[in-house]
Amino acid sequence: MPKIRLAMVQTNPVVGDIDANVAAAIERITQAVALGANLIQFGEMAVTGYPIEDLATRPTFIATAEAAVGKLAQELKAKGFGDVPVVIGHPAFATNPSGWAIAHNSASVLLDGAIAHRYDKHHLPNYSVFDEYRNFVPGNELLTFTYLEKRISVVICEDIWQSGGPVAQISTNQSDLTLVLNGSPFESDKDDRRLALIRELAASQQTHVSYVNLVGGQDDLVFDGDSLFVAKDGRVIGRAEQFAEDIVLVDVDDKPTLASEHQINRSDDNWQVWNALVLGLRDYVRKNGFKSVVLGLSGGIDSAVVATIASDAIGAENVFGVSMPSRYSSDHSRGDAEVLAANLGCHYTTVAIEGMVSSFESALDLSDLASENLQARMRGVILMAESNTNGHLTLTTGNKSELAVGYSTIYGDSVGGFAPIKDVEKSLVWQLARWRNDWAISRGELAPIPENSISKPPSAELRPDQTDQDSLPEYDVLDAILDRYVEKRQGAAEIIAAGFDHSVVDRVLSLVDRAEWKRRQGAVGPKITGMAFGRDRRLPITNKYKG
Amino acid sequence: MPKIRLAMVQTNPVVGDIDANVAAAIERITQAVALGANLIQFGEMAVTGYPIEDLATRPTFIATAEAAVGKLAQELKAKGFGDVPVVIGHPAFATNPSGWAIAHNSASVLLDGAIAHRYDKHHLPNYSVFDEYRNFVPGNELLTFTYLEKRISVVICEDIWQSGGPVAQISTNQSDLTLVLNGSPFESDKDDRRLALIRELAASQQTHVSYVNLVGGQDDLVFDGDSLFVAKDGRVIGRAEQFAEDIVLVDVDDKPTLASEHQINRSDDNWQVWNALVLGLRDYVRKNGFKSVVLGLSGGIDSAVVATIASDAIGAENVFGVSMPSRYSSDHSRGDAEVLAANLGCHYTTVAIEGMVSSFESALDLSDLASENLQARMRGVILMAESNTNGHLTLTTGNKSELAVGYSTIYGDSVGGFAPIKDVEKSLVWQLARWRNDWAISRGELAPIPENSISKPPSAELRPDQTDQDSLPEYDVLDAILDRYVEKRQGAAEIIAAGFDHSVVDRVLSLVDRAEWKRRQGAVGPKITGMAFGRDRRLPITNKYKG
Repeated sequence: MPKIRLAMVQTNPVVGDIDANVAAAIERITQAVALGANLIQFGEMAVTGYPIEDLATRPTFIATAEAAVGKLAQELKAKGFGDVPVVIGHPAFATNPSGWAIAHNSASVLLDGAIAHRYDKHHLPNYSVFDEYRNFVPGNELLTFTYLEKRISVVICEDIWQSGGPVAQISTNQSDLTLVLNGSPFESDKDDRRLALIRELAASQQTHVSYVNLVGGQDDLVFDGDSLFVAKDGRVIGRAEQFAEDIVLVDVDDKPTLASEHQINRSDDNWQVWNALVLGLRDYVRKNGFKSVVLGLSGGIDSAVVATIASDAIGAENVFGVSMPSRYSSDHSRGDAEVLAANLGCHYTTVAIEGMVSSFESALDLSDLASENLQARMRGVILMAESNTNGHLTLTTGNKSELAVGYSTIYGDSVGGFAPIKDVEKSLVWQLARWRNDWAISRGELAPIPENSISKPPSAELRPDQTDQDSLPEYDVLDAILDRYVEKRQGAAEIIAAGFDHSVVDRVLSLVDRAEWKRRQGAVGPKITGMAFGRDRRLPITNKYKG
Repeated sequence: MPKIRLAMVQTNPVVGDIDANVAAAIERITQAVALGANLIQFGEMAVTGYPIEDLATRPTFIATAEAAVGKLAQELKAKGFGDVPVVIGHPAFATNPSGWAIAHNSASVLLDGAIAHRYDKHHLPNYSVFDEYRNFVPGNELLTFTYLEKRISVVICEDIWQSGGPVAQISTNQSDLTLVLNGSPFESDKDDRRLALIRELAASQQTHVSYVNLVGGQDDLVFDGDSLFVAKDGRVIGRAEQFAEDIVLVDVDDKPTLASEHQINRSDDNWQVWNALVLGLRDYVRKNGFKSVVLGLSGGIDSAVVATIASDAIGAENVFGVSMPSRYSSDHSRGDAEVLAANLGCHYTTVAIEGMVSSFESALDLSDLASENLQARMRGVILMAESNTNGHLTLTTGNKSELAVGYSTIYGDSVGGFAPIKDVEKSLVWQLARWRNDWAISRGELAPIPENSISKPPSAELRPDQTDQDSLPEYDVLDAILDRYVEKRQGAAEIIAAGFDHSVVDRVLSLVDRAEWKRRQGAVGPKITGMAFGRDRRLPITNKYKG
């Protein structure tokens, strides 16, 4: 019986760049065939990138994507690969539009210059960051086809996360192999959940499972790759790189075997989160046509971590740090910023803001709050001027804890097109800083982040001797309350019952609610938790509910 | 046979302010009963306000709403109204959670101190600004109950906009009267569509229809009221005020008659749009606890229109205009701003920005673009300082055409918590200005907007002799292209085929796509069209698709 060599192709498509995505697919297919593959699988929407959001509702977009798939099939035949089935994800017109949706989220099997089979995703996720019920028409039938005497089924992503639907027919159709095409974004504990789910599918439907994910950053999402092949008996046969393009080869038979060199074990959580942040930033920069970034370096931990992520992502030579001291900036802060820049090897300049602050103070009669915000806004204006003059992308360095309680100045330290640590709570910012330093040391490199930036009490330095804890509870308490309120959706009574101080809980919840208008105007940044601010959590600004 | 006097109660609830909404409901019920009503109907989610967005996924919120409904029933009985059925909308726990959704979008019939009947909305809108499939579990059964020998059915909003579902059972259940509870936001041509739809329902299901809508502003939505009673034969029996709370009384029999004084005809489109903008601003201010607003007055048409809307909404004495001239501001601009403020009777101060601009120019080496943006950002900092010092809500004055093509300075003229004309294209800004002046004259009042602000060529005044048309096509051309690309989702080829210049179309579409990141960070403002920027149009920032 002829044997199938499956190539699991994990690509990093750019949303909307259909021609480039198809060209990259052809290159990968050529490479895979050269390695002996005779069945090739891509991820969900590999043709268009993912998620395409309301592009799905534009007829010209769907028509362009469909035409590209047809052309891809023809080109593969012209190259002599016509007999190798290629399974790839793309949007396709639905015959039964509903609501705004005109298209399916589909997977086509390309064979002999044409589309031999098509599957339309059945379960459309419409929770968390996903709006697929808005954008797609569900399909209802499982695709199972025969190739080299094997029965092969095709489903897409959410189909295996919900019960019922086409997935329940896989064993009925006696499928030897099930290809799952995915666009599954990174969350810090998701790799374990995916593996458990795939094993359950393999066991319940008695099928080998090839789970191919996308990789790459897209606005607030990071697709981590981590494609997996799991045999009927639950064994992990192959596992692709995280955070990089990759091809995994598996010889598929009753006992599948890995035909490429790949590690099965994953790296630890800190490594994963760090690399998610790095990839998220790198792809935002690259895919939006930027070459460099600018950010304020205060000597504090947040800007130090963001500068390090940026240096890892696009090279320190493309990172421009600006120190913008005021009358309240301590000497050690300026020193820490300078040491960081030297450690990283990034650009570093200083622009004192005192003269600018004075020019406003002499024209306006300012309250204390206005006066503090004014300093932050001078810095925002400077960073945007640098961006306008030199074409840098401005990074904003706020962390999730600050964004949650509105501990930032809108149009001040919040300015920028991308917010690399917006989903990283303050406790985790410190943890990542320590981890990154240790990781450097373990590789014989210089630890980039000054110890002083990690160990000193955090301060916005907007008035004399200010620290964050003048206004906020200790960050371990704050983060624990935020985790319950934001991520777990607990009410005040439940959080208090868990042992937190009544007045602290009321105050934190009230701050979170009141900061909604600021968050709405914030930059996008990579989601790494189960509940990121942004489209993951959609609350009214006008909202008097307390509880 | 006893007669039913129906009170259609059009209220303006505040999202999340459940106690206040219930107290207001009791007051309205008391009033209606005093007017002889013996059946009372509210709008969709009148208990909690609408839309509640992800509050729907918080168990404490749903529990609070359910408890409030139970308590309302008891209080009505205690007041002696126990025998009057009250039909009111609220969220309620679903027994079958799905996805993130734990609740139904429900309507309860309160009678004799308890919930006598309940209906759960079947068709959940999940397009345009709506995410109801995300937030609610659909119900599947029509509610029909008997009261005073009449058969009465209850459905909710979207149920009558889509085919199939419970609505199709209304005639089977021989319903004399159908109560439709709505949370239907204003769009400039929606009143006609609603009436046609209600007439179709009345004719196809052979039922009188009482359509009760909410009224009031909620973030980017304005509910316009305009509740309607349509008899089986298609006659409009009663119609509530637009943009105000109201009670319409109808004696319901084979030939229903109006029992309160109400006009059937609507005012013209300009009046409707203007009042939508006024109510949207007034309610954002009021419901978020502000008392006053601040905005920059440039002498241009946009800020003139916004200042006039604000004065109509909250009184000119609560409107603070700031003139912030630069070296490029013309004398006539300053004069026009001053005349406007005098006409309105709003506050007016002048803060020259020259000194502040110089303090930056001496510290930084700026490109032309950076230099233009700097001026706008100085103004943004001044307005936010005024806001921080005096507690004003900052209004940003950008119109839809500018937002579309990114013709604004982010963190400059875009600063603010609310954007009153963000969904008003430039052509309509002029039209509304003329209409508002004429309307004033027709009432014997002073026309507020200086003729010069309306008739002069629009300019950002950021460099000498600049006009908008240095960078943009004429606004009538621009708005026509935007209408096709944004609202009608046409592609470049289709727009060019309609007779527009190829290079102009390409340029405009490219500007629209490139401004997505700015729009994401923009303030909310009232939707008045079928496709507003914001949650109505969800596109990726990272997107290379052209077409």
